[in-house]
This record gives sequence, C-alpha cells and structure tokens, in this order.
Amino acid sequence: MDPMRIGVLTGGGDCPGLNAVIRAVVRTADMRYGSTVVGFQDGWRGLLEDRRVQLKNDDRNDRLLAKGGTMLGTARVNPEKLRAGLDQIKQTLENNGIDVLIPIGGEGTLTAAHWLAEEGVPVVGVPKTIDNDIDCTDVTFGHDTALMIATEAIDRLHSTAESHQRVMLVEVMGRHAGWIALNAGLASGAHMTLIPEQPFDVEEVCRLVKQRFQHGESSFICVVAEGAKPAEGSMQLRKGGTDEFGHERFTGVAQQLAPEVEKRIKKEVRVTVLGHVQRGGKPTAYDRVLATRFGVNAADAAHAGEYGMMVSLRGEEIGRVPLAEATAHLKLVPQWRYDDAAAFFG
Amino acid sequence: MDPMRIGVLTGGGDCPGLNAVIRAVVRTADMRYGSTVVGFQDGWRGLLEDRRVQLKNDDRNDRLLAKGGTMLGTARVNPEKLRAGLDQIKQTLENNGIDVLIPIGGEGTLTAAHWLAEEGVPVVGVPKTIDNDIDCTDVTFGHDTALMIATEAIDRLHSTAESHQRVMLVEVMGRHAGWIALNAGLASGAHMTLIPEQPFDVEEVCRLVKQRFQHGESSFICVVAEGAKPAEGSMQLRKGGTDEFGHERFTGVAQQLAPEVEKRIKKEVRVTVLGHVQRGGKPTAYDRVLATRFGVNAADAAHAGEYGMMVSLRGEEIGRVPLAEATAHLKLVPQWRYDDAAAFFG
Amino acid sequence: MDPMRIGVLTGGGDCPGLNAVIRAVVRTADMRYGSTVVGFQDGWRGLLEDRRVQLKNDDRNDRLLAKGGTMLGTARVNPEKLRAGLDQIKQTLENNGIDVLIPIGGEGTLTAAHWLAEEGVPVVGVPKTIDNDIDCTDVTFGHDTALMIATEAIDRLHSTAESHQRVMLVEVMGRHAGWIALNAGLASGAHMTLIPEQPFDVEEVCRLVKQRFQHGESSFICVVAEGAKPAEGSMQLRKGGTDEFGHERFTGVAQQLAPEVEKRIKKEVRVTVLGHVQRGGKPTAYDRVLATRFGVNAADAAHAGEYGMMVSLRGEEIGRVPLAEATAHLKLVPQWRYDDAAAFFG
Amino acid sequence: MDPMRIGVLTGGGDCPGLNAVIRAVVRTADMRYGSTVVGFQDGWRGLLEDRRVQLKNDDRNDRLLAKGGTMLGTARVNPEKLRAGLDQIKQTLENNGIDVLIPIGGEGTLTAAHWLAEEGVPVVGVPKTIDNDIDCTDVTFGHDTALMIATEAIDRLHSTAESHQRVMLVEVMGRHAGWIALNAGLASGAHMTLIPEQPFDVEEVCRLVKQRFQHGESSFICVVAEGAKPAEGSMQLRKGGTDEFGHERFTGVAQQLAPEVEKRIKKEVRVTVLGHVQRGGKPTAYDRVLATRFGVNAADAAHAGEYGMMVSLRGEEIGRVPLAEATAHLKLVPQWRYDDAAAFFG
Repeated sequence: MDPMRIGVLTGGGDCPGLNAVIRAVVRTADMRYGSTVVGFQDGWRGLLEDRRVQLKNDDRNDRLLAKGGTMLGTARVNPEKLRAGLDQIKQTLENNGIDVLIPIGGEGTLTAAHWLAEEGVPVVGVPKTIDNDIDCTDVTFGHDTALMIATEAIDRLHSTAESHQRVMLVEVMGRHAGWIALNAGLASGAHMTLIPEQPFDVEEVCRLVKQRFQHGESSFICVVAEGAKPAEGSMQLRKGGTDEFGHERFTGVAQQLAPEVEKRIKKEVRVTVLGHVQRGGKPTAYDRVLATRFGVNAADAAHAGEYGMMVSLRGEEIGRVPLAEATAHLKLVPQWRYDDAAAFFG
Repeated sequence: MDPMRIGVLTGGGDCPGLNAVIRAVVRTADMRYGSTVVGFQDGWRGLLEDRRVQLKNDDRNDRLLAKGGTMLGTARVNPEKLRAGLDQIKQTLENNGIDVLIPIGGEGTLTAAHWLAEEGVPVVGVPKTIDNDIDCTDVTFGHDTALMIATEAIDRLHSTAESHQRVMLVEVMGRHAGWIALNAGLASGAHMTLIPEQPFDVEEVCRLVKQRFQHGESSFICVVAEGAKPAEGSMQLRKGGTDEFGHERFTGVAQQLAPEVEKRIKKEVRVTVLGHVQRGGKPTAYDRVLATRFGVNAADAAHAGEYGMMVSLRGEEIGRVPLAEATAHLKLVPQWRYDDAAAFFG
Repeated sequence: MDPMRIGVLTGGGDCPGLNAVIRAVVRTADMRYGSTVVGFQDGWRGLLEDRRVQLKNDDRNDRLLAKGGTMLGTARVNPEKLRAGLDQIKQTLENNGIDVLIPIGGEGTLTAAHWLAEEGVPVVGVPKTIDNDIDCTDVTFGHDTALMIATEAIDRLHSTAESHQRVMLVEVMGRHAGWIALNAGLASGAHMTLIPEQPFDVEEVCRLVKQRFQHGESSFICVVAEGAKPAEGSMQLRKGGTDEFGHERFTGVAQQLAPEVEKRIKKEVRVTVLGHVQRGGKPTAYDRVLATRFGVNAADAAHAGEYGMMVSLRGEEIGRVPLAEATAHLKLVPQWRYDDAAAFFG
Repeated sequence: MDPMRIGVLTGGGDCPGLNAVIRAVVRTADMRYGSTVVGFQDGWRGLLEDRRVQLKNDDRNDRLLAKGGTMLGTARVNPEKLRAGLDQIKQTLENNGIDVLIPIGGEGTLTAAHWLAEEGVPVVGVPKTIDNDIDCTDVTFGHDTALMIATEAIDRLHSTAESHQRVMLVEVMGRHAGWIALNAGLASGAHMTLIPEQPFDVEEVCRLVKQRFQHGESSFICVVAEGAKPAEGSMQLRKGGTDEFGHERFTGVAQQLAPEVEKRIKKEVRVTVLGHVQRGGKPTAYDRVLATRFGVNAADAAHAGEYGMMVSLRGEEIGRVPLAEATAHLKLVPQWRYDDAAAFFG
C-alpha cells in the first residue's frame, strides 16, 4: 500500500486511553505503511483553525501510553459551527495533504465524523466513552478505568458506612446510561443502584434501607448514576440553572435525593460525588490494550480505504461498523442486565 | 507484672488504622502480659450503655489489620451526656473489672479521656486524626492514608485539567488545620493551596490563575481545605444552614469560591469534593506500622500504670505525653511550613 | 422451578474472583430459586472426603466479594485418584442430596467435570484461568487482575531501567499461552515479549537490544512468559529437576536466558520474576463483575437442567458451551494477534 | 543573598523521589534566590566526564515530581576512580562556575561527598535510601514507597497462602538493615521476619511453622530481608559466584532457605523475590513531600554556606547534620524495635 498522510484529533471529554490510541495509530502508520500522522489540537476546533502538530513514532509517545488525558488537547465544539466550517475543514485537509481523518471521540464526535463522511471526507472513527454508551461495540476504552476508580472508592466507603452505621449515596458518571453505576454497584457489593434507564421511586429506596437495617445490617450504600431520574410522582428533580449560583453542578441527583430519604427514614444520609476523578489519570491495563488495538485497526482501516466506519470490539476481535449504524442509538443498560444485577441489591 | 483487664473503645470519625491499634493492644496484652481486652461498642456510647465484646488474640484480628473502619463501631457523643454519665461509666468499668481504659480517638475523644483521668479513671489515650491536628505527636495514623488518597485523586485531575485547559478546585479534609491540603498540594504538584491557617483573598487566587495562563501553562489546580476561610472583605462565606435543603454539605468553601472566581476570570471553574473516600478503606503501610506501634505502647503504658497519658510519635520513637498537654491546643500548620510550600505554588 | 441443593467447589490454583463466583451462585440460588448451596473444601479432595460447609446468603459472603483466594480452599488432585473415587463421589453427592455440582476451575478441573458429566453426574462448569487459556470463552475472571498486576510492575521497572540504562527481563505467568505476556507487554510499552506460541531466538533478542541502544534509547524491557521456549538450535533450556536443590523454581526461562544475552551483548541483564503476586489479592472491578455474572448464570443453568455445560462470555453476553468443546483445546495466542502486537516491540 | 550556580547529581541505585528533590532544588534556587542549577548525568561519572544538562524551573519538571527514577540518570562509580579524578572534578566545577555541589545518594554517594568536602569542595548532601539505613535522619524518601510495594505484595500473597495452606517466603530489599522486612512484616500481618541484624536459626523457623499449623492456622508467611543471615551452625549460605551461571541473583537467601525448611517440615515452601519492583515507579505522597522538603532545605543550605552537611529529618523538622557523622555508621534495626515487633510474629 502507498504511504498516506493521516490526520488525528480527539474530541469531547478527556478519557484514559486517548494517548494509547494516538500512539498506536502513529506507530502502525509508520512501521506497517511508512505513513505519517498529523495531530489537530483541541478537537474539531484545531481542525477548523488549522492548528496542528507533527506526531512522531518515538519514545516520547511510548511514555504517554500510560498517561491519562490527551496529548492533543480536546474541546467541545458547537455542531452549528462545525457545519458552517465544512469548506474550511476540507481546505485544511487539502492544504495539509491529509488523505484520511481519524477522529477519536464519543457520540458527539462520532456523529460529526459520520456527517463529514457523508460530505465526502475520508473518515475512520474511534469510539471513546467512559459511560460505555456507544452502540455496536462491546465496550470502549475508558470505561474500565472509570469503573475501577468508582469501585475502589466504594470499597473505601464501605468501612466508613459500617463503622458509623450509615446510609450513603455515591454519585458516579453516566448521564444517559447506567453502566458505571450498575457495574460498580455489582463489583463493590453496594446495596442498591439507581440508573437512568430505570426511574426510581423514593419510597422504594427508603423501603430497602429500612429493610436492611431491620435485618440487623449496619450500613446501606446506594450507587447513583448522575443521570438517574425519579419515577413520575416520586419526587421533583430540579434542573441545573435553578440553583443559587446558576451552576448545574450543585443540583446533582444524589444531593437532591439525600434530604428526601432523610425526611422519610429519620436518619442522616451522606453523599459522595466522585466527579472528575473518574475520567482522569492512568488507564487500566485493559483500557491500554483495547485502546492500542483500536489504534492499530484504525490505521489499518485508513490504509484499506474503509471510510465512514468506526472500529469496534466484538468478542475477541476488533472489527468495523458503519458510523451511521454506531451513532443511530445510544447503548443503554437492557432490562435483562438490570434484572440480573437486581438480585444483588437490597 | 500482673495480668490486667483492659477496656478499649474508638471514638469520633472512623480512620484507617483503628483496627491495627486494637489488634496490637490485644496482642501485646495477651503475649506480653497474659492480660485480656474488652471492647466497648460505638465509642463512649457503648461504655455508657455497657455494650461490649470480648476481643481475642486470634487470626480474625490479624485479617482486620489491613481493613479500614473500626471493628468496634464508633459514634460521636455529646460531652454533656458523657459528663452526666460519669457514675454510670465508673460502675460499668467496675462491673466488668476493667483496670484501665484505652480510648482511641481525636481531639474530642482525648479531651473526654483527659477529663475522665482527672476524675480518677485510669486512662491511656491513643491519638487518631486524619487531619493531623493533634498536638504533641509528629503525626498519627490515618493522615498518611488520607494524604495518599487525596494525592492520587489530584494526580488524576491533572490530566483532565491539562487536556481541557481548565481551572479546578479540589476540596480535601481539614476543618481546622491545612495539613492534608498543604501536603497533597506539594505531593501532587498543585498550583495553589488554601488552608484554614491562612485566610485567602479571592483576587489573589484570580491573579495567580491569570498569571499561569498568561505564562502559557494550560491548567490550574488549587487544593482547598474544607476549613479554608476568605480574608476579611474578600468574599462572604455562607454557613451551613442557609442553603435550600438545610444541609451543611452543599455549602462547601470550594463550591462557594468557584463562581466568585468564574465571575472574575471569565472562565469555567470545576469543583471536586473528595469527601468520605479520604477516610475509609485500607490503611497505607505507614499507617499500619504506626498504628501497631501505638497499640503496643498503649498496652505497655497500661501495664506500667502510666495513666493520664497519650502515646505519641517523636522522631523514630514512640513515647508518652500528658493528655492535658496534648489536648491544650490543636496542631496547626506553622507559618514557616506554609512559607516553604508557597514557593511551589503559583 | 423447584428449589434445589447445589454443590460448589474450587479446583486448581487460586484466582482472584473465586469468592465472587461462589457468592453469586449462593445469592442467585437463594433469591431467585429458594435453593441452598453446599461448598466442598479444598477442591475435589473435599468431595472425595465429604468435607463440606453450608454456604449462607449473608453479609459475610458480601465482604468476600473483593477478597482474593477462595473461601472453600483449593488443591490439585491426581486424576487417577479422582477416577478411582467415582463411586465415592456419587455416594457423597447422594448422601448430601446434591442435585447438581458446580466446579469452578481451570483446564484440569473442567476436564474432570466433563468426565463426571459423562459418568452421569449433573455438572455445570465455571471457567477460571489467570493465563486466559480456556477455549470457548472470550476471557475468564482472574486474567484481568493478573494483567493489571504485571502491567503495574512493568510500569515501575521502566523508571529503574531508564535511570540505569538497563536491559531487564520480566517473567510473568503463562505456561502454555502467552496472553499475560503479550497484553502486559502492550499495556506497559515493553520493547519485546516472548511467548510459548512463538519460539524465540537468542540472537534475535540480542539484535533488538543492540538496535535499541544504537538508536540512542536508554533501556530495554522484555516480558517473558514462563512457558516461553527457545527455537531449535538457539539455546538449551534446562528443565526443572536439574538444578542443585531439586526445585523447578530456580530454572525459570528468564533466569536461564539472562546469561545467554549477557554473554552476547556484553552488558548486564537483570531479571525479575513476578511469581505468585500475580494470582493473589483483590480482584479488579472487571473480574468481580465477570465472576458475578458467571455465578448468576451457573446457578441459572443448574436450575434449567443444562448439565455438561460451561458458562462462557461471548461479547456482551454470558452463554453456555458444552464442556466437551471447551476442554478440547487450550486457547493460545493466534498468529494474527501476535503480529498485531509485534509492531509495538523492538 | 547573591545568586549562585548549583550542581546536582544523583548517585547509586535509583529511588522514588529523586526527581522530586531535583525539582525542589531547582525551584527553590530560582524562586527564592534567583540561582541556576546544572545537573550532571549518570552520577559521579557525569561529573568526571563533564556531561551536564541545564535544569529549568518549568512545568516539565513539575510533571516529573510523581515519576520514579531520576531524570539525570545514575550509575555506581568505583571510589578509586573518583579519588583519581579529584583534580578533574575540581576543574569541571570551576569551568562551569559551580559554587556548590548537591549530590543526592546513599551511603556510597554520601561518603564520597564527605571526602570531597574534606578536599575543599563545597558540598551539601541529600540522603537517599530505600533500605532506610542512613544514620542521623529519621527516614529518607524511597523507603516508604518500597515499604508500600512490599506490603501490597504480601497482602496479595496472603490469599494464595490461605487458599492453598502454604508456607511462603518473601524476599524483600535490605542488604545490611532489616527495616523493609520488619515494617512490611508488621504492616501485612506476616508470621515471621528474618533480618540481617538478627541471625536466624533454621530449626526455629521450622518450629514456628509447625506450631502455627498445629494451632489450626492455614498459612505461614515469612518476610526475609535479602541480607538475612543464618546463625552459626544453622545452615551454610552460599555466596554469589558459586552458582552455575556465575550470577549472584540465583543464590538469594530465601531461595536457599526454602529447601532447608522443606526437608525439615515435609511440606512445600514457595518463594517470591520481589526484586526491582520495590525501587521503581511513582513515589508515595509521603516520599514526594519528604523529597520536596529535602530539596528546599538543601538549596537553602547551599545559599547559607552550610557545606559538608547532609539534610535530615528529625521529628517534624528538616535540619542538617555533618556528613562525617551521618556516614560514620549505618542505621540498623535496634534490638528494642525488633523485640517490639517479635510479639506479632509466630
């Protein structure tokens, strides 16, 4: 195959494993095809503004393999702005002689990638999501690291909860999908989990808490996905924006749920919001291997001319699926997974 | 020395290393003196209500060495209630044939211990504080674990902050003393730290943020002790109780500071509140060794009749200091320590 | 479905996640079917000798979820002995009213399970292997934990290797299959990996070392699976038994390879043998979730009467495959996986 | 104070925290005194050969704070060679306008520093030792990290030992002093520890093993310092050099002790040699703080003209002691520390 010139960018929130993907793309392009790789900075913005950096296949890259974040920087960009900049993007790619673009990102980035592909830009997407909500792939890198961090945190909370006989709510990531909450709940032996896919009832939460304490147990830990929603008629969830600072961050669901539970069970309820620590830092070995394999496959796809596709893990193998299919739906926790887990709660 | 009957209890918040102290007291009492140990449950409350458990020198204990929390449970008790229960306490100790009581706890517990000692109860105190604010000892167990957890969390936040070019505030424990904030700030290479001992000025925070970004750096992480206070005239800190839920937890200093900084620097500021994860779970090796040595020494002190004393680390040795002296003042971050650290911030 | 009486045992080497499987079997059996579970101690031996323990669905179990090892104990048993004890085994199962047996183990245990199934004993197998060499399942619990430990160890060795400009060989588990070596090598950015599936040539190892140092790099780390074998004519590997103590452990391949490399490159080569730390202790979140899901599915299979089967992960779902099929071959690293990884070495 | 030009080098084995010291020296020199710092590469060798690098007070340095190893490289050098090169060294320092030299290292490096100081070279030493065997300081950075790694490894081995009812020997660092073995033994709840300061008797080891199994316990873990020595008449320890490859590494004390124990107790004994993983990688928060404080103080000492001194931790404060005093003796485990710990073994 002829050497190519590949462009890479990382979009959306940062995620452990991004550097491993970039390194693998660069390394595979160089060693297997003699191709070169250019990185655009700060996501789509760098592409719009033609801010770029030459990526070399060297030891500096290797040292980034185990580092969180992204060496290219990332930013969220308004889809309107992106659409308005199509000509500019095409021009930038042409000016830099880019044969194919590899955007690494979540739903937003991949949707943009799909749209670019439809506009004739040669694109190969790499899925990235801590929440594990991208469809058509068993999982992506980042989720395992977030799961590990959430699980270790809940492991720690157990001893405090038991020593003080406490009810604790732990809020974890997961805006649309409850994978982190469900898996971390299972892994850490939590006593309940609330996920966006299954609206919760405050009375039911309280019933489980009371039941556990009546059985003589000394603590109750409930893992709450940030996107968990009360069932209709259960409680009113205030939206971001209504709080006194004008900040969304003060109105997390766990913090709103806590006083509702307290009122009913007449017992103090403590809240821990894990927040950004779930997305930063050293990726797990699992995520580094998966990210590396995605990077290899994306470079191969680029050289094979398989455009408009997203790399994907299916069982033991990395394959490719059309971006159109992968971005059609979010991958939510199906009913059967929730039911299987439910036996471990309460 | 004649065998004794020792009582043990853990008071105040839980802390990694409590089980290691208890195990060491039991083991030393048994192997060195043939003495037995009784544990009172849930802190002073168990002593008031004569709820107790026999502690055996066996493998079950050994397995708790590396576990967080306290096998005896803990609770905070109203000092009034304690004072009103003095006769009851003395009676319980007498009924159970307790020769000496070893309370393990923080400032509140040790103050109560001191008062009991003055009332003629044979007492040997063991200091416990995550915040490192107990005087007359270089450090106590628990602080190192909290410092490790806070540092690892900030290590993780660095990669997110750099990838997104963000300003981040991280709130750590430390109501009266800024040791965790100062040490975690130093250990993790944070760019600023706010501690209770040094009232902060919002304008100065903003000046440092701006300066760093002007120098071309891509992130700013400020570690904020939960007890950090604004300087007079800088900003108004709302107290717990004024918030919309009637809960203290929603009015942390970091969360109140963030919008003040945002307003001034016109840039988003993200807040992470580490919370309870800092106090739970497996103690570090350092804390396990120190807790074990405290337990050995407390058992020795009990048998040597050194009552009214607290065990204490001084350099390489464990010694004892009068409870009166140890509880006279909290140990705050001295000016020279702050000045030494300040060179690393900004 | 009618309640059943289920027997469980763990065979072969211990593995992080065994307790999570046992807990999930007990919990699912109890909550979903009202069934009871009996554990046999020390693997097949406990079944032969009718040593057993009643397993309850309680909090003690929950606390074992995150613990390594196996609450039932394990031991290797001679297949001859097992075959000779068939009548005894059937008798024990009948005496205890066991409706179905769930053995959890690796190749040896599953082969025995398959044989028992053919002899008419109702059996559902659960695969367990740190080495990831069991066929017909994407992966099993234990491998991820071993991979994480090996990767973190190699992460640590990098800084020593760079500081001292050293050549290091790190021996990891993998007697027949090189999965740990390959994945840990990829995840940690090692410079070479030797696996049983691909006989190595000492001269080629030396060539890569020399090349790297000639390129100005300052270290070389090679991950060696314990089952790595030299290509014919390359070097002679002594077998266990020839060493001076009569112990296999002193003749690891890494330790035999080191002086061969030293001789040729005239440079010191350091060896680290990770050994047992790879198989003990707290399982990763990934392994806890997978082990839990296997346990749920095994209990379901038992109640559905799907005997002679092994639970298995395929993509996102847990399914079942005939034990006959699963034990026919070991799962080795295929050529294409090795080739993909090879781009990262050298 | 006038700005100075400071030289820094790191000698001996690498150690977590070296980069933190270097960063703190550079930062303090720059921010407090406007001074500049030059780093010599690969220990004394770089000084002899005038290989150096300018060290800047920038973010790159900050990122090394949490990295193991040493950015300057390190190497062991023959004392004869050093002595022969005195004129050369003085010339190099003069040529580069170095006002004061800060060597960071262990006993060997500090002894050389002391000798240089006596020869009139302005020197401030910073102690570095994983083994904790440098005198006149409570502890130095590196030991806490090694202790943490050893303790976590033994934590993991416990579950394997219990599951298989095994006797395990774990060899840890400590050639002359048993601090790691003693502290890791205490922290991890090991059942025995063998240290260089207390020659061991094979029969006594076997007696403790037998006693524990007779009491119904299911495992025995003994932590062995690499420098542990048999008592006279107990067993013969072969020295490095007698083994078949001409390599010292195959004759570790644990590996020689194992068959001796096996012979006597008729039970398999497993050996784990932790090796290099104890010295590499990310330092603990404790070590990062201590290393930083040492670096600050060393820079202050340099500017205060306190030559011939070593920085030192005493209680809560960093002070200085004469290099002559600090290098006169190694700091060994005193009898009372061993006796205190002994109650936890057996």
